Amino acid sequence: MLSRTRRLLPETTAHLRNHLATPRHPVSMYSKQLASHTSASSSDKEPSIGFIGLGQMGFHMATHLQSKSHTRFVIYDTNQQALANFQAQVREAQEESSVTIARSPADLAEQSTVIVTALPESAHVKQAYLGSKGVLEGLRPDTLCIDSSTIDTTVSMEVSRKIIEAGGRAVDAPISGGIMGAKAGTLTFMVGSQSEEDFARARVYLERMGKNVVRCGDLGAGQAAKICNNLLLAISMVGTAEAMNLGVRLGLDPSVLAGIVNTSSGRCWSSDTANPVPNVIASAPSSNGYEGGFKSRLMLKDLGLVANAAKESKTPLMLGALAENIYRHLSNNSEMAEKDFSVVYKWLGGRS
Amino acid sequence: MLSRTRRLLPETTAHLRNHLATPRHPVSMYSKQLASHTSASSSDKEPSIGFIGLGQMGFHMATHLQSKSHTRFVIYDTNQQALANFQAQVREAQEESSVTIARSPADLAEQSTVIVTALPESAHVKQAYLGSKGVLEGLRPDTLCIDSSTIDTTVSMEVSRKIIEAGGRAVDAPISGGIMGAKAGTLTFMVGSQSEEDFARARVYLERMGKNVVRCGDLGAGQAAKICNNLLLAISMVGTAEAMNLGVRLGLDPSVLAGIVNTSSGRCWSSDTANPVPNVIASAPSSNGYEGGFKSRLMLKDLGLVANAAKESKTPLMLGALAENIYRHLSNNSEMAEKDFSVVYKWLGGRS
Amino acid sequence: MLSRTRRLLPETTAHLRNHLATPRHPVSMYSKQLASHTSASSSDKEPSIGFIGLGQMGFHMATHLQSKSHTRFVIYDTNQQALANFQAQVREAQEESSVTIARSPADLAEQSTVIVTALPESAHVKQAYLGSKGVLEGLRPDTLCIDSSTIDTTVSMEVSRKIIEAGGRAVDAPISGGIMGAKAGTLTFMVGSQSEEDFARARVYLERMGKNVVRCGDLGAGQAAKICNNLLLAISMVGTAEAMNLGVRLGLDPSVLAGIVNTSSGRCWSSDTANPVPNVIASAPSSNGYEGGFKSRLMLKDLGLVANAAKESKTPLMLGALAENIYRHLSNNSEMAEKDFSVVYKWLGGRS
Amino acid sequence: MLSRTRRLLPETTAHLRNHLATPRHPVSMYSKQLASHTSASSSDKEPSIGFIGLGQMGFHMATHLQSKSHTRFVIYDTNQQALANFQAQVREAQEESSVTIARSPADLAEQSTVIVTALPESAHVKQAYLGSKGVLEGLRPDTLCIDSSTIDTTVSMEVSRKIIEAGGRAVDAPISGGIMGAKAGTLTFMVGSQSEEDFARARVYLERMGKNVVRCGDLGAGQAAKICNNLLLAISMVGTAEAMNLGVRLGLDPSVLAGIVNTSSGRCWSSDTANPVPNVIASAPSSNGYEGGFKSRLMLKDLGLVANAAKESKTPLMLGALAENIYRHLSNNSEMAEKDFSVVYKWLGGRS
Repeated sequence: MLSRTRRLLPETTAHLRNHLATPRHPVSMYSKQLASHTSASSSDKEPSIGFIGLGQMGFHMATHLQSKSHTRFVIYDTNQQALANFQAQVREAQEESSVTIARSPADLAEQSTVIVTALPESAHVKQAYLGSKGVLEGLRPDTLCIDSSTIDTTVSMEVSRKIIEAGGRAVDAPISGGIMGAKAGTLTFMVGSQSEEDFARARVYLERMGKNVVRCGDLGAGQAAKICNNLLLAISMVGTAEAMNLGVRLGLDPSVLAGIVNTSSGRCWSSDTANPVPNVIASAPSSNGYEGGFKSRLMLKDLGLVANAAKESKTPLMLGALAENIYRHLSNNSEMAEKDFSVVYKWLGGRS
Repeated sequence: MLSRTRRLLPETTAHLRNHLATPRHPVSMYSKQLASHTSASSSDKEPSIGFIGLGQMGFHMATHLQSKSHTRFVIYDTNQQALANFQAQVREAQEESSVTIARSPADLAEQSTVIVTALPESAHVKQAYLGSKGVLEGLRPDTLCIDSSTIDTTVSMEVSRKIIEAGGRAVDAPISGGIMGAKAGTLTFMVGSQSEEDFARARVYLERMGKNVVRCGDLGAGQAAKICNNLLLAISMVGTAEAMNLGVRLGLDPSVLAGIVNTSSGRCWSSDTANPVPNVIASAPSSNGYEGGFKSRLMLKDLGLVANAAKESKTPLMLGALAENIYRHLSNNSEMAEKDFSVVYKWLGGRS
Repeated sequence: MLSRTRRLLPETTAHLRNHLATPRHPVSMYSKQLASHTSASSSDKEPSIGFIGLGQMGFHMATHLQSKSHTRFVIYDTNQQALANFQAQVREAQEESSVTIARSPADLAEQSTVIVTALPESAHVKQAYLGSKGVLEGLRPDTLCIDSSTIDTTVSMEVSRKIIEAGGRAVDAPISGGIMGAKAGTLTFMVGSQSEEDFARARVYLERMGKNVVRCGDLGAGQAAKICNNLLLAISMVGTAEAMNLGVRLGLDPSVLAGIVNTSSGRCWSSDTANPVPNVIASAPSSNGYEGGFKSRLMLKDLGLVANAAKESKTPLMLGALAENIYRHLSNNSEMAEKDFSVVYKWLGGRS
Repeated sequence: MLSRTRRLLPETTAHLRNHLATPRHPVSMYSKQLASHTSASSSDKEPSIGFIGLGQMGFHMATHLQSKSHTRFVIYDTNQQALANFQAQVREAQEESSVTIARSPADLAEQSTVIVTALPESAHVKQAYLGSKGVLEGLRPDTLCIDSSTIDTTVSMEVSRKIIEAGGRAVDAPISGGIMGAKAGTLTFMVGSQSEEDFARARVYLERMGKNVVRCGDLGAGQAAKICNNLLLAISMVGTAEAMNLGVRLGLDPSVLAGIVNTSSGRCWSSDTANPVPNVIASAPSSNGYEGGFKSRLMLKDLGLVANAAKESKTPLMLGALAENIYRHLSNNSEMAEKDFSVVYKWLGGRS
């Protein structure tokens, strides 16, 4: 992969030379670029961080990252309210700190040495990096782009390669842990990177937002690991719901059954931590009206990524394909779509 | 259920009165019955144990039970060689001990106050208890029948009820742990019983053969818990195989992927203990040519019991039904049928 | 098996003494056969027909059979009202005809040279033939037993063999065509028989109730053919519902889509005759509120027979097992359970 | 989108200058349109046809179209040999006719009033129309683009819309009938068009290549109808294979079973025309070593399009998703991948 990077350098350098020699933007922007380059020369001590995507996950992540980084912090989102809220929150907490709102991903990129993105789908990531006024149009040399979105492995790799071709560095770092984990700062990041150096560099920032940071392999490996885990998770959850439903209908007490399964070969996270039968595990979403977990429609989205990856890699998914279509059937019910994905127990006709 | 038992008592008693008052068998058999009744009067101190089924599991179980019980031990099997082997083994180990070979289950019953059965399928259990010269024809009052076979819940309950109607006591106590567990004496027994008393009585003997003895509920509950666990186990294993296969084809190192899954929401016994990809878990059957585990054709058999229970209880099994048919497809390959059920990874085209 | 028949003799003899006043076995076997042939010599001109099972299908079938047969007609059902209704109906239509109500299947058998059974499930057929006061207890030599019920292939073959061992003849002749076909006399019978002669003999009566009478092979072959057809039917119907649902959601007019499919490689009975989308085929149940067809819960019952046969024969059913569980899920909805099985289109979220 | 067209102008103009010597845009847009109509006035009598894609299907289609059209015929393919072969074939057959080989899709478009494309996948269609030197760069006003490829409905609609925005007309016209149908000129075309006029115009050419030309609805409707048919086809075929396999294992003669199914409610094209059991239907691929039909890997490709459409339209496909994964599993076997898709009978362990 290093050779590949090297191959790309000549063109990239030429591109960058032009880019730097002639202003592509109004003079004011150019001067800002100069200014930030000045600061970039000392960027090892004082990097500036750009954060794109202040949604349900991103807002909490950015909060942790900003509060633990003593550096300039630039944010961007298409939702103006989210930006205002974040700025207000920081102002309240830390009088000295300041957060800058960028006019576009490109504008943000011009002010950042590290960029973190937390976006919902492949299309948003493509748009944010490769679109008009996207990150690539403002990317400074050697900027590290950390995409924590869960998206198509192929799209992730394509975007990463284009960032690298443009002179930046890229890692994919999708998340496990949900909104609760984002809020608590206990997320797990599954990282794909070209080198250990990129990983080490990304780790510094990821550890400010989460608890576990694992390198899964080369570019795209983070995405791959994430969807493989979620494929197994979906299958385990539907399987647990089927087994618990059968047990209850055969007259077993669900807590007794769970107790046996959880100390036997059937044990799994879906059974011992997020059991889909209400009141078996007090802290499970099922015991709270299936609220507060991982929404069915988001599981469906991830299973769509799984399906794409399976098609590309010619991997037969017997149970996985069925699980995807069960969640699609279930998500056509607008109420169930918004519930924790353990609600599949209800879909199966499970009694509480 | 107590009320049910009470309801059965009048008839049962009448039956027993006749049974005891008039010989159903040749005089010689009657005298033997008397004889054993004499010993039965002291049966609380010195119960005699009957064991039916010296197959791959039963032989090891009987070995543990006999060596830890200081009492008369009667055995029965249709395989004469197994009987001879068991007798020879005991003779070598314990000079004083003696093991009696019964001529039939009825003959065995006439000499036992506790009977343990370890048989392959519903039909064998039905035959052993209810068939001609079956246990019921020789059953002594209050004899405890412990069936450790994994069979249809409905058959199990039917046999148990008939034992109770005939004046005996019955518990179902299917096993988890496999041949290795039987040999090591570390089996788990999932017990269904009418009362805590029956369970307490059975526990004494089960603990000589295993490590964990759990009461799952009323009669049949042991069978129900067992098949629910194995349903989830089969689904988890196929799911793990699909997820690992996808990951490997996407370029992930299987050990790295397993490491991530096992600390995330996808973790399950099939991933962290019996991972189907060779050399991910050294002690897993997959790392030993898929030998030494739970054979695919036996998993298929259990999934057949699941299917019967699901039909009876009108429980939809989406993934479970597919898993059953995957194991049926796989087991049509005579080699794979005899391998550990994690070999489904190979069936899916998984690379090692 | 002769020994088994002999075992039944004591009880049987009592009946026989009362009604035939001639011993059936063993020396007199030939003479008895002669004797019954003597009575049969009048029965060749005037055989007496026994009909067991006046349910939704059976009532219409018996009506056709009785009105087209100029012979004594004996009926039996556990539902007294059905018997009374049938008798009243015949009395109204044909002043001279008479219909006799038997006290039991055995009683009916003693008065019949041909017996037709139309019963809901394996257990009923077993009870009617092999149970206490069942057909076998009154069976006259050479009586032809035609079972038109759809039941387990193994049970069907077991019952047929016992009839033959007891001196009768047996064919399995399950039906295709539904209540409408039963009423119109246009049923198809799929017949399994030991010989062409048995088939020819059965055909005479079956043609009075239906339109097509096909020999499928040896004993059990009728059952086998029936469930294979219904397996494919269920899969085709769910498949048609999925394809139509997809087309409609993609913006196609369902009638246009059906038109194309029905002249292409996707065409099937479920698409061109019983299309599950309302108002595509005017005569389809879907166009009549999913009324008047083949109920989902009956399709589920047949898929249960399929599952048993697949287990016995080690046949992997990937789509078939899933279809069964879809109908189980659907039938847990008490309203859908009673609708034509094309209602699976609604279950999938199909729009009309 | 006009702006997009304008952006393309500089390069396009160069081409146009060379070939048409008349500017297409922008002031002259109207006059050019007039001009092209002038030339079109001669093109009504003598339209010139462009054909892109001389693969297994396209070669036969182009042969029919060229031989039945008395007009200029321009061809393009990336495979030079295919172009040479086609030219040689025409030269042999018709001395006066001439076939021109274009240098690019754009070059072909500049010489055509009707363009037919027959390409393998979405990416090829996108490239041929929207790529560099693609059709859009040379498109003459009012040119009718007929895409007979089977591709993603969304891609098809996107390409069609861009053709229309660029001043052309577009219809999607995927094919049913296979290579045999292409050779015999008996294909069925399923057409999606904005208007009846576009359809009427396309029909003229499609009828030279096939037998049935059906309008399915608006743009994309041809693709939608095609994949809905093939979804049902795949399900029916796997279902037929499962039902025939079950029947054979239950002891039925496959021809007898097929005869019964084909006159009953299980009948379908996969059973009565392409029965997967060898020697049931003499003309079926199964009777010819599964050669000469619709390859499994192509069915898999179509099921991939189905999966995309299902995801977009949120349509649950229970059997369809499983069928896709069965064909993916099967196609991992390189030999089976190239056989007719009825080979799934062999995959299931079917006996011949």
